[in-house]
Amino acid sequence: MGKRAGGLCTKLVLCVGLVVLLSCSVAFGAEDGTGDKLASSSDVFFILIGAVMILAMHGGFAFLEVGSVRKKNQVNALNKIICEWSFSTLIYFLIGYPIARGVTFLVPIAQMGENGFEYVKFFLLLGFAACIPAIISGGVAERAKFWTNALAGGIFVGLVYPLIEGATWGNFNTFLGAESGWLATTFGAPFHDFAGSVVVHATGGWLALPAILLLGPRLKRYEENAIKVSSIPFLALGSWALIVGWFGFNVMSAGSLEAISGLVAINSLMAMAGGTIAALFVSRNDAGFVHNGALAGLVAICAGSDLYHPIAALVVGAIAGALFVFLFNTETEKWKIDDVLGVWPLHGVCGAWGGIAAGIFGLEALGGKGGVCFFSQLLVTSAIVIVALAASTVVYGLFKVTVGIRLDPHEEMIGADLAVHQIEACPEEAF
Amino acid sequence: MGKRAGGLCTKLVLCVGLVVLLSCSVAFGAEDGTGDKLASSSDVFFILIGAVMILAMHGGFAFLEVGSVRKKNQVNALNKIICEWSFSTLIYFLIGYPIARGVTFLVPIAQMGENGFEYVKFFLLLGFAACIPAIISGGVAERAKFWTNALAGGIFVGLVYPLIEGATWGNFNTFLGAESGWLATTFGAPFHDFAGSVVVHATGGWLALPAILLLGPRLKRYEENAIKVSSIPFLALGSWALIVGWFGFNVMSAGSLEAISGLVAINSLMAMAGGTIAALFVSRNDAGFVHNGALAGLVAICAGSDLYHPIAALVVGAIAGALFVFLFNTETEKWKIDDVLGVWPLHGVCGAWGGIAAGIFGLEALGGKGGVCFFSQLLVTSAIVIVALAASTVVYGLFKVTVGIRLDPHEEMIGADLAVHQIEACPEEAF
Amino acid sequence: MGKRAGGLCTKLVLCVGLVVLLSCSVAFGAEDGTGDKLASSSDVFFILIGAVMILAMHGGFAFLEVGSVRKKNQVNALNKIICEWSFSTLIYFLIGYPIARGVTFLVPIAQMGENGFEYVKFFLLLGFAACIPAIISGGVAERAKFWTNALAGGIFVGLVYPLIEGATWGNFNTFLGAESGWLATTFGAPFHDFAGSVVVHATGGWLALPAILLLGPRLKRYEENAIKVSSIPFLALGSWALIVGWFGFNVMSAGSLEAISGLVAINSLMAMAGGTIAALFVSRNDAGFVHNGALAGLVAICAGSDLYHPIAALVVGAIAGALFVFLFNTETEKWKIDDVLGVWPLHGVCGAWGGIAAGIFGLEALGGKGGVCFFSQLLVTSAIVIVALAASTVVYGLFKVTVGIRLDPHEEMIGADLAVHQIEACPEEAF
Repeated sequence: MGKRAGGLCTKLVLCVGLVVLLSCSVAFGAEDGTGDKLASSSDVFFILIGAVMILAMHGGFAFLEVGSVRKKNQVNALNKIICEWSFSTLIYFLIGYPIARGVTFLVPIAQMGENGFEYVKFFLLLGFAACIPAIISGGVAERAKFWTNALAGGIFVGLVYPLIEGATWGNFNTFLGAESGWLATTFGAPFHDFAGSVVVHATGGWLALPAILLLGPRLKRYEENAIKVSSIPFLALGSWALIVGWFGFNVMSAGSLEAISGLVAINSLMAMAGGTIAALFVSRNDAGFVHNGALAGLVAICAGSDLYHPIAALVVGAIAGALFVFLFNTETEKWKIDDVLGVWPLHGVCGAWGGIAAGIFGLEALGGKGGVCFFSQLLVTSAIVIVALAASTVVYGLFKVTVGIRLDPHEEMIGADLAVHQIEACPEEAF
Repeated sequence: MGKRAGGLCTKLVLCVGLVVLLSCSVAFGAEDGTGDKLASSSDVFFILIGAVMILAMHGGFAFLEVGSVRKKNQVNALNKIICEWSFSTLIYFLIGYPIARGVTFLVPIAQMGENGFEYVKFFLLLGFAACIPAIISGGVAERAKFWTNALAGGIFVGLVYPLIEGATWGNFNTFLGAESGWLATTFGAPFHDFAGSVVVHATGGWLALPAILLLGPRLKRYEENAIKVSSIPFLALGSWALIVGWFGFNVMSAGSLEAISGLVAINSLMAMAGGTIAALFVSRNDAGFVHNGALAGLVAICAGSDLYHPIAALVVGAIAGALFVFLFNTETEKWKIDDVLGVWPLHGVCGAWGGIAAGIFGLEALGGKGGVCFFSQLLVTSAIVIVALAASTVVYGLFKVTVGIRLDPHEEMIGADLAVHQIEACPEEAF
Repeated sequence: MGKRAGGLCTKLVLCVGLVVLLSCSVAFGAEDGTGDKLASSSDVFFILIGAVMILAMHGGFAFLEVGSVRKKNQVNALNKIICEWSFSTLIYFLIGYPIARGVTFLVPIAQMGENGFEYVKFFLLLGFAACIPAIISGGVAERAKFWTNALAGGIFVGLVYPLIEGATWGNFNTFLGAESGWLATTFGAPFHDFAGSVVVHATGGWLALPAILLLGPRLKRYEENAIKVSSIPFLALGSWALIVGWFGFNVMSAGSLEAISGLVAINSLMAMAGGTIAALFVSRNDAGFVHNGALAGLVAICAGSDLYHPIAALVVGAIAGALFVFLFNTETEKWKIDDVLGVWPLHGVCGAWGGIAAGIFGLEALGGKGGVCFFSQLLVTSAIVIVALAASTVVYGLFKVTVGIRLDPHEEMIGADLAVHQIEACPEEAF
């Protein structure tokens, strides 16, 4: 009976949540859906390829988690990522994008221009937004309730992330981002986050942390040798898909073909190499760390990839790789925070590091292109971290005391695959 | 001895088949191989990327089948897809493309234009044609004879599909497709199938159905709990490769960079989300259905992806996702038709639904771009379904009474991997 | 103690090696880092996509090896590929590219032009250079020392490959490659290797051979039935990633969008089909051979893919597929050379065959575009084979007598995963 009541509560919260989000949509959504009619077919092609590459990264998120959890939660990892991508598509289409960008798609298609540039721009930016639940997913793996977690993801993609996105890149960036904003007039340069070290990754990582803390560790996590990852090959497969797709994430952040920058590409490459090599040395050739070290470098490079000298990019990436290994061990072993995929050190810390690094290595004095200011970077990065921590604490806190955020112990023991999806990863073997 | 005779028969039929196909090539093939000399290098790049993405989808077909069959048939799934891609390349190059498009490549390369646009156009359209055997493969899995099935695929790719393609998109489309064709003058609009919901997917799915019926179910399929899929992760990997590549399948169907449409991209995205979410709810969070639901949405969207409002695309995709779950269960459990990957509901039914949907949601009254007619859509979709059913019944029927279409029971019991390929999927484990 | 001394020796050699390489950098590196300032944003986009596709191929190299080794060396395969990619990035950036192309990146970024074309060109060419250790990795798998092998790879990527690249495509190609070079004046045509059959693949394959011979076969390799591959699905996954990415490797070798050639794409396709089908028949439907046969065709087509008639490309690929099956069996079974992934027949022999084939099927008399000469092809191909054999014999020979190149028998028995990386491929299963 308690379970049925819980189910009803979940649905109730879901409905209330949707109503809240939809009213926000009405409040913030711009009436004007004209978009950029002048953007050429080449720009549509360019942005489309970026969007598709980021879509492929979500397959990477799925397999990174498949490999990093126990076999009894592999199906759950896969279903979470593809479903949350799909939920995010709807929510960001209806609510998030209108808030962040001031464009609604609920207008006749004839108003969206000949080649539909705004549509592919949405696709690209959805790829960024949908990283939020994909990042959280890795932290709360193996014990979070499917639907409560999906609802939290929906609130973040529909409301929290779009506000952060709108404040830095989009609709309300006159305050922080634009030339004449407060940061520019106070410190000499606006906040700079080229491809989302802070806006996407730090937001995701710091949103995940309260969820991880509120959930608590997996059962038997801190008994001796109780939990091992299921598959390094699947983990590496996920990492490769993320690495390859990341060049779309970063390069196509230019926004138009004319603005493409080979510097962004080589800096991403150097940061990936730096992160990999640093993780290799610090972890003493541990495969999980090495494949995540590449990602740590790529998380950190996003913000300033258009500014750095390639040698600086290498350093930024290497610091990120080393940070990841050190903090993952500290977090999960010393502090006993059960962050399954290490999403707080990977996306949270390396993302924040990326934002701050742009204020250091982006300076002309260090070979960068300039136009950045350390204090602007520090301030906005800190602000976003605080907003993310607060938002997640409220959302997951409320859910914890109402509908519950965690599988019951029996469900967790048999694994989410059987408990939630009625199937195992390899049903034939199990049979 | 019976086996050797069978082998001889197969080879005989193969030779006769090739002769028939080659004579068709002579009959239909155009002498003029000049192609489109004016298409720019950007168009070549654009189409090439589409072609490569569709090639990646074939890797997806392979892994979707690997995950959905038992482990003893994984190698067979992999070999079928890569070999039938290779056979299709040859046959479509020599026979199919000349029939469908009136261009032969058996001319000096100097005649094909500076940048070789016709060559990449062939590559893209081969990706479509090769879907036919890849779709059938999933239906006849675990029991069809390798060579007989390959020969049937060759006939479809060389003859049946090119006739359908030529009638709708290509060489002989004055009847159905062009502005002045019979459908346009009778009903006000020609048949519209932008990216092949009907021409590719329905053709494949309805070609598969007679093969599945003529083969009969796998041994012990309808004994209790006898057959389970081998690997949800591989199934999901295949699904991701198909999803990502599909944006090449749909967007590059524009045929030239100038004609690129962001609307096609966002509609594919919305249909994928709709299909996923519908399958999630109807199947109660079943991983196999969810990952196929995304594909169902994508199958259905192809035809009208250039016409719909994104909200309509969501609806078209969601209906497809729900249809797939419902019909797969009905087909395989109630009707006891052993369609291993559900290719009839997925490609056959959702493809036909896509063709018909273009005649509904493509209308201006429903927010679409117009220029379509429900009756044109219904008529041609039905015609293609009937042609596919008839062609497959004749081909597989003839093969069944002559060379045989099914592995012998011992081969089926030990699995096609050992029986046909002399190796298991994980030889080290087996050893 | 012997082990610690060995560790010290390795580090010493590493340092000396780096000093040698860095002095080469000073000696050969051009001062002028201006690059091609005029190349348009479209060219940057075009080359970037090629580079990203080649990056994806390295994921393919990783999984091809994962599937082809025993489970106890899967992690090692994964770590080798991603780490050697990262090392190669650094070394080719600092030393290799300056040697081969006369451009150093150790200059202010403002000097590298608006869109940074030189940066993406570096990324693309790094993808080629990093194939060298990735190819060798497959030959020396399951028994080579991680660090010694990495150092050898670094020397090849930093020095040997750049000299070959510089002599044929780059900095010093006035001798061999340019219109007025010795080959052109002596035989009528310079050496032609459009996308690296010889420069990349033959170099890699013939560098691998001495390493394989100096290492000797894996323990118990030639006892009866002692060693089986671990996973055909992972092998096939690697093959698919390589196949798909190869269209970037070949097509983007054009170097600029304007020079794109659909002929290169269709010839790659035909060679892949030819290689697959030939391997299918010669190996009697063996899955490992079929998926490597496709690669054999693609290795062989690189050199002349811009010259052949598609029918000739089919023949070149088919010969490569047959060659691979025949020579792999001869090499590993008859000659008892334990080339784990068959990199000598695949890259070494099929690469050399590709170089020679360009001098045959590239001729106008055989339907090609002409401008090639059989003797130029034969001469330079032979020279590169000899240089690679010599360089590898010296490097691996020196390492063998100093720091050692092979895991000790205990490490090899338990597998490199546990011995080097302290983790197994599927830790949860093992536990």
